[in-house]
Amino acid sequence: MKTSFRDIYCGEVSDRFIGKELKLCGWIKRVRDLGGMIFFDLKDREGYIQCFVEKANTKVYNIVKDIRMEDCVWIKGMVRERKDKNPNIKTGNVEIEVFEIKLFNRSSELPFLVEDDINVFEETRLKYRFLDLKRPLMQNNIILKHRFVQIVRDNLNKKGFIEVETPYLSKSTPEGARDFLVPSRLAPGKFYALPQSPQLYKQILMVSGFDRYYQFARCFRDEDLRKDRQPEFTQLDIEMSFVEEEDVFQMIEELFEDIFNRLFMKTLNCPFPRLTYFTSLNKYGSDKPDLRVNWEIKDFTNLLKDKGIKIFEGCEAILSLEIDVDITRKKVEELNEFVKSQGGKGVTYVKYTDSLSGPLSRFISADYLKKGNVYLFVADKKEKAIFILGRLREKCIKLLEPELKEDFSFVWITEFPLYVWDEEEKRWEPAHHPFTMPRNPGDIDKSPREVIGRQYDLVLNGVEIGSGSIRNHDPELQRKILKKMGYSDEDIEKRFGFFLSALSYGAPPHGGIALGLDRIIVTLLGLGSIRDVIPFPKTAKGYALFEGAPSEVGKEQLKDLKLELKNEND
Amino acid sequence: MKTSFRDIYCGEVSDRFIGKELKLCGWIKRVRDLGGMIFFDLKDREGYIQCFVEKANTKVYNIVKDIRMEDCVWIKGMVRERKDKNPNIKTGNVEIEVFEIKLFNRSSELPFLVEDDINVFEETRLKYRFLDLKRPLMQNNIILKHRFVQIVRDNLNKKGFIEVETPYLSKSTPEGARDFLVPSRLAPGKFYALPQSPQLYKQILMVSGFDRYYQFARCFRDEDLRKDRQPEFTQLDIEMSFVEEEDVFQMIEELFEDIFNRLFMKTLNCPFPRLTYFTSLNKYGSDKPDLRVNWEIKDFTNLLKDKGIKIFEGCEAILSLEIDVDITRKKVEELNEFVKSQGGKGVTYVKYTDSLSGPLSRFISADYLKKGNVYLFVADKKEKAIFILGRLREKCIKLLEPELKEDFSFVWITEFPLYVWDEEEKRWEPAHHPFTMPRNPGDIDKSPREVIGRQYDLVLNGVEIGSGSIRNHDPELQRKILKKMGYSDEDIEKRFGFFLSALSYGAPPHGGIALGLDRIIVTLLGLGSIRDVIPFPKTAKGYALFEGAPSEVGKEQLKDLKLELKNEND
Repeated sequence: MKTSFRDIYCGEVSDRFIGKELKLCGWIKRVRDLGGMIFFDLKDREGYIQCFVEKANTKVYNIVKDIRMEDCVWIKGMVRERKDKNPNIKTGNVEIEVFEIKLFNRSSELPFLVEDDINVFEETRLKYRFLDLKRPLMQNNIILKHRFVQIVRDNLNKKGFIEVETPYLSKSTPEGARDFLVPSRLAPGKFYALPQSPQLYKQILMVSGFDRYYQFARCFRDEDLRKDRQPEFTQLDIEMSFVEEEDVFQMIEELFEDIFNRLFMKTLNCPFPRLTYFTSLNKYGSDKPDLRVNWEIKDFTNLLKDKGIKIFEGCEAILSLEIDVDITRKKVEELNEFVKSQGGKGVTYVKYTDSLSGPLSRFISADYLKKGNVYLFVADKKEKAIFILGRLREKCIKLLEPELKEDFSFVWITEFPLYVWDEEEKRWEPAHHPFTMPRNPGDIDKSPREVIGRQYDLVLNGVEIGSGSIRNHDPELQRKILKKMGYSDEDIEKRFGFFLSALSYGAPPHGGIALGLDRIIVTLLGLGSIRDVIPFPKTAKGYALFEGAPSEVGKEQLKDLKLELKNEND
Repeated sequence: MKTSFRDIYCGEVSDRFIGKELKLCGWIKRVRDLGGMIFFDLKDREGYIQCFVEKANTKVYNIVKDIRMEDCVWIKGMVRERKDKNPNIKTGNVEIEVFEIKLFNRSSELPFLVEDDINVFEETRLKYRFLDLKRPLMQNNIILKHRFVQIVRDNLNKKGFIEVETPYLSKSTPEGARDFLVPSRLAPGKFYALPQSPQLYKQILMVSGFDRYYQFARCFRDEDLRKDRQPEFTQLDIEMSFVEEEDVFQMIEELFEDIFNRLFMKTLNCPFPRLTYFTSLNKYGSDKPDLRVNWEIKDFTNLLKDKGIKIFEGCEAILSLEIDVDITRKKVEELNEFVKSQGGKGVTYVKYTDSLSGPLSRFISADYLKKGNVYLFVADKKEKAIFILGRLREKCIKLLEPELKEDFSFVWITEFPLYVWDEEEKRWEPAHHPFTMPRNPGDIDKSPREVIGRQYDLVLNGVEIGSGSIRNHDPELQRKILKKMGYSDEDIEKRFGFFLSALSYGAPPHGGIALGLDRIIVTLLGLGSIRDVIPFPKTAKGYALFEGAPSEVGKEQLKDLKLELKNEND
C-alpha cells in the first residue's frame, strides 16, 4: 500500500518493477557484508526483498555498515534483476540497489530472534510480545483470524443477520462461573458485572423483533484458570427467531462450508453427523468425541463375565475400545499407566491380525472381533469404565494418529440433560444455562435427572467449539425452571425480573449458538494454545506479562470508589 | 428468511405469491373487527402484511377475536390480491386469508404503543427497552448502524487493514478521564483497568509490523457524565505505519465517500477542507466549526473603538459574526439573552438590506459591510469575545437554519497545541494524549504554550467525530515529553516502561485516528441523542434502567476480592 513514505510493500516488489526506482520502508532482516558490497534483506508484513549497496556509495554504505536486525529504515533504490534467483520467495527474481537510506529507529539488542523457529520460554515471548507478534507465524495466525472473522461476517450479513453491540458494564448473570465486578463511583457500594456472555441481551433482541442477530462478543469469566482458558475471550454469538434445532444446524453448516471454501479451498461434508448426548457418551465415552477416527466402545460384559478372568472379577461392566490401527506392546504399557492415572484398574487387550494375540486372546472367539483391529479392555463400574475409555480414546488418538492434524471432523451433540448434579454444591445446576427449553415442557415436573433440554454442542476434532440451545420463550415455564433450581420468588424478581418481564411481551420462539472464536482458530490451525491466536493474552494466573496487569492502584482511586483493601489477616 | 416456522418475512409478501399458500410468523400490529370478518396486520422486522379471517372459519376466528397488539403468532394462509390496495406500504397489493393460526406468546398490557410517534418519558422507554427497540425508528437506527459498520469494514479490509482485538482487562492508561477498575480475585489487592481506548495496544501493533490496524473497540471512561456521554462507547480505532497526516486524511475521506455512496447514495465533496486550530478559532470561535454555513467572525476593533459607542467602552476587541440570513428583532433579543447566559455583556447588530439598520447603523459605513448580511457584535477581552461569538454562531445555526439537517460538512482541524493548561490542576496537560509527535521535535524545549502537536480532529456539522495524530515513535523524545508533563523517572518506568521498551525495538513512524461510532451515526441521522443508536444505553448517571445495573453484590463476592465497602461516614 502506497503512503507518503513508500511506493509498495517490500513483499510486493516483482519483475514488473525492474528498472524502476522505488521507495520502501521496513525492518532489517539480515545483513551480509561482502567487503566491497553489503547485502541486506528488508522486510514488512507482506514479505522481504534483497537489497544491496556498493562501497562506492560512501554515504549509504557507511550507514548500512552499522545497521542491525530489526532496525527500521526507509530506502530509495533501483529494482534490478537478480543474478542468483531465489525461487523460494515471492520477490526472489529481483533485488534493489540502494541509493538512499534513512534510519527511522534503531532496535535495542534482541532477547530472541524474530523468526519462527525459536526456542524460548513462553514467558519471555509474552513479556516481549511486540517482538513475538512480529514473527511470521504469529503474524499469520492473527491475519488468518482476521480473515476468518470477515468471512463469518460476510456470510451472516448475506443471511440477514444484524450485528448488534451489547453492554460490557452489565448486570451479573448466572452462567456458572464468577463474574468480574466493576465498582461504580457514581453509585458507591454498587457494582457492574462484566458479562460472561450476552445471553440475556441477545434473547431480548429477539423479543425486540430483530429476528437475526450476531456479534463477536467479548466474554469475561473469573475462573481459577485452567491451562488453556483466558479470563476474557471472544465468542461468535448468534441468535435467531422462529427456529428449531435444524435451522441453527443448517445455518452453521453453511457458515463452515463457506469458511473452508474461502479460507482453505476445501470442501466440507455437510450436513454434519448428529449424535444424542447419551449415544455419544455410550459410543465414545465423551460428549465431545473426536470423529476423525470411528473407534467405538463395545460392551463385552455378557461375553466375558464369569469366565474366570481375574482382572474382571466383580466388575459391573467389561467394555472395550475397538481401534483399527496396530499398537505395540510398549504403547499398551503406556496406555495402562494412563488408565491408572485416570483412576482405572488398568487396560488389557486382544489383537486380531492373522490370529488373535494378547492377554485376552484365549478367552474370546474371533467371531466377535474384526480382523485387523485391536480391542482395549477396561472393566469397572459401567459409568466409570465409559469415562475411562473416553479418556483412553483421546489418548490413543494423540498417541497413534499424529497425522490426523490435517483432517476435520464436525459433529453435533444433541439432547443434553437440562440439569447436571453439582456434587460440590449438592444441587442440580443447569447443564448449559437456565434459559434452555426442555424437550417436553411437561417433563420439568419430573425428577431433574430425567429432563432433556433442547441444547446442542458443536464439536470439531474432539474440541467443543460451540454450544447453543432452543430457548425457553414461555415466561411462566421459565419462572418454574428457575424455582426448580432453588431460587426464591424474591431472588427471581431481583435477578431475572427484567428478563421475565421482557418474555411476557410476546416473546417469539428463538434459539441460537455461541462459538468460541479462539478455540476454533486454534483447532483449525492445529496450534497448541489459544494464546497463539490472541495478540495480548493473559497467563494461566490471569497476568498480562507485557503491559503488567493487574497492578496496584492509588489510595485516592479506592477512596473515590468507597472501597478498602481488606487486611490479609482479617 | 425461511425457517422451520415460516416461508418468508411478512414484509416480503408481494404479488408473485398471489394464489400461493404461505406460513408466516410475527406480531399483531392492529386488529379491526368488522363483525363477519376480522382484519389484522402481522408485522416483523421487514414490514407488515394485512391478514383477514372470515367468521365461517370458526376455530381461527375465535382465536383472532381475542388477539391483542404485540401478541406473537404463527399463521398459514392464502395470498390474495387486495381490493383496496395500499400504495404506501411494500405489501399493499396483497393480503392473506388466514386458514390456521397459532399463538406463540401473549403480550402483557403495553406501557406505550410500539410505534414511532409516541410521547413517553425517555425513562419509560429505557425501562421497557425491549419494546422501545421494537419501534420502526429504533429498528432502523440499529440496522443502519449495522450497515454503516459493515461498509467501514469492507472498505478498510480492501485497503489491507487487519482487524485485531486488544484486551479489555488491561492496565490503566492516562487519557484524561478516570479508569473503571476491575479487582482481581487471583491477585488480591491488584486491579485491572478497563481501557479508555486501545491507544498503546494499537501503537504496539505498529511496532509489531502489522502495518495497518483497525478495530471497533469498546472504550470505558468513568466520567461525571454529561448529558450525551456514555460510560462505555464504541470507537472505530485505526492506525497505520509509515504515514503522514495526508495519508490518514485521504484514507478517511475515501472511507466517508464510500459510506455516503453506499448508505445514502450521495456524493461527498473531497478532499475535506483543512483548517489549523488557530485559524478555526479566530474565524469561527471554535475548534469544531459547523461549516454548513460560511459565517465568519470579523474584527471591527480598529473601526469602532473610540467612536464613543458606550457599550463598547473599554473593550479590548469589538468582533462581529457576519451571517447571510435575515434576523428578526425578537430573535436578536433571544440571542442577547443567550450571550449574557454565556457570560457576555450582550449583543448588538447592524443589518444591511437596502440601507443600514439596527442600533449600530449610524456608527458604521456600508463600505465595510456586505449587502444582504447581518452583523452581530460582541465586545470584550479578545479571547472571551471569540469564545462567545463561537457559541453565538452555534446558537444562530440552531435558531435560523433548521433545514441544515440535510447537509453534511466535514472539516479537518489541524496543528493543535500539544499541551493545554489545566486550570484546576494548575499544570500543562496533553491536549489529546501524551503520544502525539510535536510538529518540530526541537520545540519541546520551548514553553509548553508554543509547542504544536501533529494532532488533527475530524469535524462534521460542528460535531467532533474523530481525533488522531501522528505518533511519537522516538523513545527518547517520548520519555522527555512524559517528564515535561511532570512524571518522575520512577513513574515513567512503572506506567509506561513496557511501552517505551517497545518503541526502542525499531518502532516505525506511525499515526492514526479514532472515530466515535455512535456520534457519527447520530450526526448522520440528525438524531437528538446517542442513546437512540445504542441498544442498551446508560442514563446520564450511569444507570442501566432496563436490566438494573449497577447493583449491590453479596458479601461473599467482596470477601473473595479481599475488599470492603467503606462506611460513608469514614
